[in-house]
Amino acid sequence: MATTSETPSTASASTAPSSPVHGYISDKDRYLARLKRIEGQARGIHRMIDEDTYCIDILTQISALTSALENVALGLLDDHLKHCVVDAAKAGGPDAEQKIKEASDAIARLVKS
Amino acid sequence: MATTSETPSTASASTAPSSPVHGYISDKDRYLARLKRIEGQARGIHRMIDEDTYCIDILTQISALTSALENVALGLLDDHLKHCVVDAAKAGGPDAEQKIKEASDAIARLVKS
Amino acid sequence: MATTSETPSTASASTAPSSPVHGYISDKDRYLARLKRIEGQARGIHRMIDEDTYCIDILTQISALTSALENVALGLLDDHLKHCVVDAAKAGGPDAEQKIKEASDAIARLVKS
Amino acid sequence: MATTSETPSTASASTAPSSPVHGYISDKDRYLARLKRIEGQARGIHRMIDEDTYCIDILTQISALTSALENVALGLLDDHLKHCVVDAAKAGGPDAEQKIKEASDAIARLVKS
Repeated sequence: MATTSETPSTASASTAPSSPVHGYISDKDRYLARLKRIEGQARGIHRMIDEDTYCIDILTQISALTSALENVALGLLDDHLKHCVVDAAKAGGPDAEQKIKEASDAIARLVKS
Repeated sequence: MATTSETPSTASASTAPSSPVHGYISDKDRYLARLKRIEGQARGIHRMIDEDTYCIDILTQISALTSALENVALGLLDDHLKHCVVDAAKAGGPDAEQKIKEASDAIARLVKS
Repeated sequence: MATTSETPSTASASTAPSSPVHGYISDKDRYLARLKRIEGQARGIHRMIDEDTYCIDILTQISALTSALENVALGLLDDHLKHCVVDAAKAGGPDAEQKIKEASDAIARLVKS
Repeated sequence: MATTSETPSTASASTAPSSPVHGYISDKDRYLARLKRIEGQARGIHRMIDEDTYCIDILTQISALTSALENVALGLLDDHLKHCVVDAAKAGGPDAEQKIKEASDAIARLVKS
């Protein structure tokens, strides 16, 4: 739905209405499908609890969902490094530092969550 | 939408005295509400990707969702230890061993996921 | 090397010098060997940093060490459930509750660390 | 015991043109001290097992050690992104891609370990 260009280096109102906004955009459909599946997994766990499914089986599904989420996060992070961070590094300056700091903080949250 | 009551305290003697009772049942409504919220979080992440939200902000939401899932898992596991494992331990025999093994395997999956 | 009995319920200087102190005791030599290896891994990482080894290779070793530690923790926890928790469950009472609470808290720390 | 200067900006062509340059070097003493502490923690856990310390207390120490290792890894990774990855990104080409791939793989190992 995004129609605005937000990457400073390529922003040009007339020419690039759909220029790569954020790094993961090329795989957007795949990410959306994965999130749909994740939503379905959450709904399935809700149903398991509602139907008093055996606890251990619910835990197995939660582990599977957690792994699916982690894989989405790792994919997004890889895309982010490849695009945003590399672009910022090339441009240099405080924006590059800021992008690295943001990425490191996001990695720390993932590792600790 | 389970309509049958399966908590020991409400089980009527004639119909299902030993119907499958799982440890988390007493907090069932709370778990269901938490899962509803988790489903909403998954839907929110789907929307963020669809709207090309900044990658780092999506990662923050994924970390929050992962933590929410972990907390549900830890709660279910605690309930499971308190009820199923304790009951099996009291009864003794191979079922107790089996229940401990299952619990340990589930813990390993959680720690490694 | 421990020769003293430390479980309150069985402590009796004259009769139970080797009574089950804690659950993991049967595999003690194996755990000690694993910890020796872990100590060696930590020393290896120290050396890698000292010798300016490539960062990514150090990270690989840290991941390996973290996994080794997790496996020790999961082994100890399994032993703990099998022995201390099962024994406490059989005995019942507040000690059983306390043991379950301790175990759940330890699991939460492992999952979140 | 590296005594040579290894940061690219100070590398003199005649002495160490290909000396290992890695990002964390500025904080090397701090990392070495942290690894010494980690080694001591591993030795402490060895002793706890040897002395039949209560299992839960050992698990607490293992969680603390795992967290300490994670923090070292996150620090090294941040340094790596700031230096190696940024430098490679500026230089561009296949080396940049390779560096990003390596970093993403290392992050995945950390998140999953």
